[in-house]
Amino acid sequence: MSKPTPISGFPEWTPAQQMIEQSVLDRIRTTFELYGFAPLETRSVEPLDQLLRKGETSKEVYLLRRLQSDDDGGPAGDDALGLHFDLTVPFARYVVENAGRLQFPFRRYQIQKVWRGERPQEGRYREFLQADIDIVDRDTLPAHYEAEMPLVIGDALRSLPIPPVRIQVNNRKICEGFYRGIGLTDTEAALRAVDKLDKIGPAKVAELLAETAGASEAQAKACLALAEISAPDTSFADAVRALGVSDPLLDEGLAELTAVVQTAAAHAPGLCVADLRIARGLDYYTGTVYETQMIGYERFGSICSGGRYDNLASSGNVRFPGVGISIGVTRMLGLLFGAGALTVSRDVPTCVLVAVTAEEQRSASDVVAAALRSRGIATEVSPSAVKFGKQIRYAERRGIPYVWFPGADGDEVKDIRSGEQVAAVAGQWTPPAADRTPVVGRARTGA
Amino acid sequence: MSKPTPISGFPEWTPAQQMIEQSVLDRIRTTFELYGFAPLETRSVEPLDQLLRKGETSKEVYLLRRLQSDDDGGPAGDDALGLHFDLTVPFARYVVENAGRLQFPFRRYQIQKVWRGERPQEGRYREFLQADIDIVDRDTLPAHYEAEMPLVIGDALRSLPIPPVRIQVNNRKICEGFYRGIGLTDTEAALRAVDKLDKIGPAKVAELLAETAGASEAQAKACLALAEISAPDTSFADAVRALGVSDPLLDEGLAELTAVVQTAAAHAPGLCVADLRIARGLDYYTGTVYETQMIGYERFGSICSGGRYDNLASSGNVRFPGVGISIGVTRMLGLLFGAGALTVSRDVPTCVLVAVTAEEQRSASDVVAAALRSRGIATEVSPSAVKFGKQIRYAERRGIPYVWFPGADGDEVKDIRSGEQVAAVAGQWTPPAADRTPVVGRARTGA
Repeated sequence: MSKPTPISGFPEWTPAQQMIEQSVLDRIRTTFELYGFAPLETRSVEPLDQLLRKGETSKEVYLLRRLQSDDDGGPAGDDALGLHFDLTVPFARYVVENAGRLQFPFRRYQIQKVWRGERPQEGRYREFLQADIDIVDRDTLPAHYEAEMPLVIGDALRSLPIPPVRIQVNNRKICEGFYRGIGLTDTEAALRAVDKLDKIGPAKVAELLAETAGASEAQAKACLALAEISAPDTSFADAVRALGVSDPLLDEGLAELTAVVQTAAAHAPGLCVADLRIARGLDYYTGTVYETQMIGYERFGSICSGGRYDNLASSGNVRFPGVGISIGVTRMLGLLFGAGALTVSRDVPTCVLVAVTAEEQRSASDVVAAALRSRGIATEVSPSAVKFGKQIRYAERRGIPYVWFPGADGDEVKDIRSGEQVAAVAGQWTPPAADRTPVVGRARTGA
Repeated sequence: MSKPTPISGFPEWTPAQQMIEQSVLDRIRTTFELYGFAPLETRSVEPLDQLLRKGETSKEVYLLRRLQSDDDGGPAGDDALGLHFDLTVPFARYVVENAGRLQFPFRRYQIQKVWRGERPQEGRYREFLQADIDIVDRDTLPAHYEAEMPLVIGDALRSLPIPPVRIQVNNRKICEGFYRGIGLTDTEAALRAVDKLDKIGPAKVAELLAETAGASEAQAKACLALAEISAPDTSFADAVRALGVSDPLLDEGLAELTAVVQTAAAHAPGLCVADLRIARGLDYYTGTVYETQMIGYERFGSICSGGRYDNLASSGNVRFPGVGISIGVTRMLGLLFGAGALTVSRDVPTCVLVAVTAEEQRSASDVVAAALRSRGIATEVSPSAVKFGKQIRYAERRGIPYVWFPGADGDEVKDIRSGEQVAAVAGQWTPPAADRTPVVGRARTGA
């Protein structure tokens, strides 16, 4: 086999990083389930027309083709399959397909890989893991679910050994109502222009607003003034009203965003900030939108985004409005791994290595291991009956804290960090709670 | 949106089935970790030449193509990417690529989707989930790991609410040595012919042995006599020796298989049976091979297979021999779901629904929910402040066992199955252990 090399955009972790990711996923899942979200997976593929139905994503889709298929590899037909590029579009499709069998409102979480054929760069991958929650209802969806999303995400992220986060919230109705209120008709073009604020700056956004949304200088200035508004409390609404624009949709958006910010302030002070520049690229959002920054990693952009969508799923006359948010797990971990910010106490789940005295006695070591495992203690048996010093080094190299020595006159167990060795019985001995499973934490960094 | 329809071969579960799958995966993982296997994931894609290196699988591979890529969709080039069709080939590649950073022997588990462009049929999917364990060492791999595999799988499957299983073991060296001992030179062709025994029967296998392996009538008869041998203990070796064939490789295989059967008999009586017809299609196996049948579902074939491979991974002069086994999770669950054999006590993780007295009081219900969640009790807040009867029906339809009523004079909680309602404090009340999380079990079937 010639030496294989990594494929750009398709990350693979080291065993230690994988242990950290597994722990992170377990904690995220635990929080999602505490809030009553049920697990769901959808197939990895969708019909191409389904994938292209929403958003400007056509260039990002990976198509599938069977190596020995009959088709000629020409242009993709209607029945072509592509890998999903997010979990929201497949979820909306699942809801419509199974509407008759689901209980509404339907709360689900979904942790799966997604694929995008983008040019890879730091924090951007072609294959990556997302952890989504969504709530979808039939016909109408109460606005209080838009306030619940940040609380779930706040709890989930607070359970992780990552820097604190700030969730920025906005409401599409505010932008749309405001743009309409100042006389702009192509509100979508205006939204797309303002969405580029962080990338190209206010002067270029003003140009873009003039070019693509037909904005006058005064209108562009008003759009930028709106985008400047940011507050950790409901004062953002006063700041918007001070701009002197009035529109019914704007009022609706202000009331909804006020409720989201109030709920967050009551249940998770400091978590959310109203930030009226948040627009989100995807065109299916219709209400609250969310982005999330890790403090100290702001320049890398959002690690958790989402929003309310009223028109993504429908079947005949029935609509299924929803709200959802997605943790970019690979993106978040890739940034933190790159910064050396996360640690794990050992590379393997193993807590005890049972030594083998002689190869003929392996069965005795197997019996010890079985007794420890039956009480939930992760245990390996030594690969060979070499000198004990070498068997201990096997444990050391992996960070396994204990080595067990079966003996004719009774067993002993050694904490190889302290060197302390004591008599022990496999049916009774228990490691300290801190050693039972690997501990994932934040690396200590200088000052 | 036009009504979407399922895609053949790409299964999706109902929410209840998904809860069952999640529970099954958790239990499998727990057992793997108790044996010291560390989690690993590899990217979903491999270079096409890597995928085609082993086994007759070219027709099963899905190639990726970017929708807007520059290539013309013509024949796949050297750098074409395909979705992996198993987890063994990617794992071998990962080991070679990261050999300098890994500790050997390297024990890992890997639970991921794989894809095969096969014609879908019952129990055969195009996208399915596998749960693998493998142990890979550098240069040499002790044979005792071949005996460990069935013990891990036995424990993992015993932890599941599935029918009991029987693991059938054989050793490629027995077949190869025996075929050589009776004078056949193309032992691989002989193996492939015998592998079809269950499908086409002994008479056709004998014809195939004559045609493809050049076997005489006596040689074909001897091959079939070997394949007939099956025993739950080491007596299989006597039965082989009684056929009067001698070969050094045959002796080696008999000794190795005897050790596997002995270890299994000592630690997990009744789990393993030596069955010399087990061949496994893949050509990379070189020692012990495994297949697993669920009792009562034998006609659907193996749900867990694997074996030892000495030549799958190498780098320059260094070889990385390994042994592994793979639970076909989707296949196993698909069969059991089809038979209605599995149940779950509720469709959601939620243990408590907190009622909302009036929409203005939602915040009080949120506080109760947060207190319950902080003590690990999965809790939802009612979607709306409709009449309590309707809120209780929301819980009933999902199987949520408790409804909580916040009150000005103190809260009460109702077990909606018994109707019993008692005073309760959110910071103290605890549900019975059996209600805390959904219970997955086997359906009771007639007689």
